[in-house]
Amino acid sequence: MAKELTSRSENYSQWYQDLVIKADLAENSAVRGCMVIKPYGYAIWEKMQAQLDKMFKDTGHVNAYFPLFIPKSFFSKEADHVEGFAKECAVVTHYRLKVDEENGGVVVDPDAKLEEELIVRPTSETIIWNTYKNWIQSYRDLPILINQWANVVRWEMRTRLFLRTAEFLWQEGHTAHATKQEAIEETEKIINVYAEFAEKYMAVPVVKGLKSANERFAGALETYSIEALMQDGKALQSGTSHFLGQNFAKAFDVTFANKEGKEEYVWATSWGVSTRLMGALIMAHSDDNGLVLPPKLAPYQVVIVPIYRQLEQLATISEKVDEIIDKLKAKGISVKYDNSDNRKPGWKFAEYELKGVPVRLALGPRDLENGTIEVARRDTLEKTSAQLDGIEEYVEKLLEDIQANIFKKAYDYREEHITKVDSWEEFKDVLQNKGGFISAHWDGTPETEDQIKAETKATIRCMPLEFEPEEGKCVYSGKPSGRRVLFALAY
Amino acid sequence: MAKELTSRSENYSQWYQDLVIKADLAENSAVRGCMVIKPYGYAIWEKMQAQLDKMFKDTGHVNAYFPLFIPKSFFSKEADHVEGFAKECAVVTHYRLKVDEENGGVVVDPDAKLEEELIVRPTSETIIWNTYKNWIQSYRDLPILINQWANVVRWEMRTRLFLRTAEFLWQEGHTAHATKQEAIEETEKIINVYAEFAEKYMAVPVVKGLKSANERFAGALETYSIEALMQDGKALQSGTSHFLGQNFAKAFDVTFANKEGKEEYVWATSWGVSTRLMGALIMAHSDDNGLVLPPKLAPYQVVIVPIYRQLEQLATISEKVDEIIDKLKAKGISVKYDNSDNRKPGWKFAEYELKGVPVRLALGPRDLENGTIEVARRDTLEKTSAQLDGIEEYVEKLLEDIQANIFKKAYDYREEHITKVDSWEEFKDVLQNKGGFISAHWDGTPETEDQIKAETKATIRCMPLEFEPEEGKCVYSGKPSGRRVLFALAY
Repeated sequence: MAKELTSRSENYSQWYQDLVIKADLAENSAVRGCMVIKPYGYAIWEKMQAQLDKMFKDTGHVNAYFPLFIPKSFFSKEADHVEGFAKECAVVTHYRLKVDEENGGVVVDPDAKLEEELIVRPTSETIIWNTYKNWIQSYRDLPILINQWANVVRWEMRTRLFLRTAEFLWQEGHTAHATKQEAIEETEKIINVYAEFAEKYMAVPVVKGLKSANERFAGALETYSIEALMQDGKALQSGTSHFLGQNFAKAFDVTFANKEGKEEYVWATSWGVSTRLMGALIMAHSDDNGLVLPPKLAPYQVVIVPIYRQLEQLATISEKVDEIIDKLKAKGISVKYDNSDNRKPGWKFAEYELKGVPVRLALGPRDLENGTIEVARRDTLEKTSAQLDGIEEYVEKLLEDIQANIFKKAYDYREEHITKVDSWEEFKDVLQNKGGFISAHWDGTPETEDQIKAETKATIRCMPLEFEPEEGKCVYSGKPSGRRVLFALAY
Repeated sequence: MAKELTSRSENYSQWYQDLVIKADLAENSAVRGCMVIKPYGYAIWEKMQAQLDKMFKDTGHVNAYFPLFIPKSFFSKEADHVEGFAKECAVVTHYRLKVDEENGGVVVDPDAKLEEELIVRPTSETIIWNTYKNWIQSYRDLPILINQWANVVRWEMRTRLFLRTAEFLWQEGHTAHATKQEAIEETEKIINVYAEFAEKYMAVPVVKGLKSANERFAGALETYSIEALMQDGKALQSGTSHFLGQNFAKAFDVTFANKEGKEEYVWATSWGVSTRLMGALIMAHSDDNGLVLPPKLAPYQVVIVPIYRQLEQLATISEKVDEIIDKLKAKGISVKYDNSDNRKPGWKFAEYELKGVPVRLALGPRDLENGTIEVARRDTLEKTSAQLDGIEEYVEKLLEDIQANIFKKAYDYREEHITKVDSWEEFKDVLQNKGGFISAHWDGTPETEDQIKAETKATIRCMPLEFEPEEGKCVYSGKPSGRRVLFALAY
C-alpha cells in the first residue's frame, strides 16, 4: 500500500506528520509556517465550527467581525499584552507594489509607505476594546457578548501542521460586563462549553483548570484552560478562557455609568479555540492504520463499498445501496457511496481506514442473497455480518457505541497517566519513562516553575478546578503547599 | 426620534451611510478603509453565507482554506494579474516589533525583515494555482471544485461601508478542469447560482452578462457578472465568475496527463461574491424609515411587541405570546419577543422598522379579549388586525407575500429603468435625468468605451446573455454594431 504511515512506536512525531498529509487533512504551503487546509480536513473543521457556533449562540452570544489589521500604537496600550505578542507580529508597512523596470517582476513601492504600521492581528483585544469604547456608555449597553470567527497570525519560529502555525483559524470571544462577578461567571461558563465540546463531540477527555501566572494569557488576571492528553503522554492545551479584569478597559478608557450614575471601568473576558483542536482530535484517537474520527465530527459517518466481479453486478448492488442510503439519511446519518470502478475494494478499505470513517459497509452478491451486509467499525477494526433488514437502527446504535468507546479509551488512557508524585527523583522518572500528567505539590512561585521547566521541560498545565485540598511539600523546593497541580510535557 | 435618517431624495449617499450606521449593520474602524461588521449586520451575512454555501455544495463543490499571505514573486507570474492588483496590495515586510527604549511604545524591529515580502491576498489565484500544481498529475485528479470563505485586502483609496472597503469578506471559488468546455460550463453554472441567489433570496433582480475587455478580471479570458440596479439608478456589480483559460496553469506550470497520456495545461475558473452583497441588499429595498429585509435573509422574520399600561398585564400577554412563538417556530419562522420594559411601544415600532424586520405583531389586552392581534408588514407599512387563531398560517403566507412583493417592486423599477437609446444626445440625457441601464449599440472597441467613460462616467455593465441580435450603429462612434449592451453609472 502506497500510503503506509510511520508507526507511532517508531516515531510518533513522524506518524502525526504522515497522517495529516496522507489522510488529506492539510499540508505546508509555499509561505513559511502557513498551512493549506485541504477539503477533507476543512470538512472536519466545519463540523467543529457548526457545533461550537451553536453552543455559543445557545449561551447568548452573537457573531461580529473586526478588522484584520491593528494600528501599531494600539499594541503599546496594555503593557503585558504588547510584551506577550510583539515578538511574533507580522507587520504591514506599505500598500502598493510597482513593476521593477530594471529586473522585471514587482517591488514594493517606496512611495507607498504607511504613516503608521499595521499589525496583522495575533488576537483582537486591542482593536475590539478600542471599538467597544464607542459602544458602551451606560450599564444598559452591557453585557456585550460577541464572538468572531477569524484568521490570526503569530510568527512562530517552529511550526507543525494544525498544532502551531503562523496563520491559524479560530474563534475569539470578547465580552464586556458591568461587574467583576459577571465577567468571572462568563469566563467559567465558556470553559465549561469548551470542555463539553471536547468531551461530547471530539470524544477527548479534558482537565479544566487555572493556569499559573507564567502560563497566563498576556494581559489576563486569570486564564482557565482545558488540557487534553495525547497518546505519546504529552499534554495539549485545547482551549482557553481569560478573565481580563479591567486591564483593557483601562488601557482603552472604556467606562460606563452604573445604575447610580457613577462612572466605572468595564470588566472583560476573552476566550478562544483554534484549528489546533484538529491536532488534538487527530492525536487523541488515531492509530497506525490512520485516522480514527468520532462519529459526531466525521465528514461522512458511513462509507459503503460495493463488492463485485463483473460490472453487471454493480447495478443490482447499487439498487440495494440506494435503499440503504435513504434509510440512513432518514436517521440523519451521513453516507458516502464509493462505486468508483478504477479502484479495488481492498484499496478502498485501506483508504477509508486511513481517513477514519467510523463505519464501513460492504455489500456483494452473496450478501444480497443472504439478506446480510458486512459491517466494519473503524475504532476496533472489528468486522461482522449484519441483517440488511433494520440496518439503519444497527448503524445508528453502532455510531453511538463508537463515539462512547473512543471517549472511554482516551479517558482510560488519561486516567492511567495521571501519576501522583512526591519526590523530585520520582518526578523526573515518571516524566521520562511514563509521561502523562504528574500530580505534584508546588510552592506556588514562578521561580520554582521556571526551574522545573529549565531542568525537565515540564510545565504546569493547570491547577485543576476540581481538587482535594491536601497539605504537602513542593516536589522541587520542599516548601509547604496546600494542593497538587498538574505538570506535563506539552505541545 | 433620535435615529431619523436623511431621506433618499435629499441625499441618497448620506441616506445609505446613515442607514448602515443607525440600523447597526456596520461602522468604520480605527483602521483606514476597514469596517467593523456589527452583530445585526453580521447575522444577515451569516444567512447569506449559509444559503450560498449550501448552493455551492449542492453543485458539487467543497470548502478548503489557503494562506492569507502570498509571496511577492508569485504576483509577477501572470502578467495581467499583477498589473491589476499591484497598485492596491498591503505588504508585510517585517515579522517582529520591539519596545522603543527611547520614546516608549513599540517600533518595527529592523532585524526582523523578511527575505521576500508577503502580500496580503487581494484574491487567491496565485497561491492556489501554485498549490494545485502539486495536486494535479493526471486527468483522474480533475476536476477540482474548491471554494474558500475568507477575508481579502485591496487598498482602495475611497471606501464606503460594504460597497468598497480595504478589507472585505468573501468566498472565492477556484476550479480546475481537463477541458475548455468543462471550465466554461462551470463558469456559467456559477453565474446562474449567483443569479438564483440574488433573485430568490435577496429579492434583487439581476442581469446576467459578459463583461467587456476593459472590465474583465485581471487574468481572465472572459468575466460573467450579475448586475443589479439600485434605487438611485446606479448599477451594482454583485457577483462575478471568470473563465481563466490556461493563463494560471501556464504561469504556474500546472499540467496533467490526459487519457491518451499527453501532457496538457489545466483549464481554470474563479468566482466570488463578497460583503458587497450587503450593500446591494440594503440599497435595493430600503426606504426613508430604514431597512427593508427580504424574509429569507432577515435575522428574525417576526418581532412581537406587547402593549400594556400596567406591568401586571404583561404576564397575561406574555403567556399568549409564548404560545404564538411556539406555533411560529414550529413553522420554521424566526421570532424575537421584545418585552423589555424600559422602552415604549412607539420606540420599539420605529426601531424594528429601522432594522427592517419583515413582520411586526403587537398584542394588547383588547386584542386578547377579541382574539385578535395587530399585524404590520414592513415592506408596505400596512397594518391590519388578524385572528389569533391560525396566526401562524397567516404569518407564513404574509412572509411569502413580502418576499414576492419586494422582488416585484425591485423588478418593476429595474424594468422601468432599462432605456433603449439610439443617439449620443439621448444617451447623455437619459444618464443625467433618468439613470438606470441604458441599452445601446456599441462598436465593440475599448477606445469607444474609454471615451464614453471619460465623458459621462458611464461604463458597460455587461453584454446580457439574453439578447436579440439587431443591426445598429454605435451610439458614440456611429460604427456598425450587431447588438445592444447595457451602460450605466455604477458603484
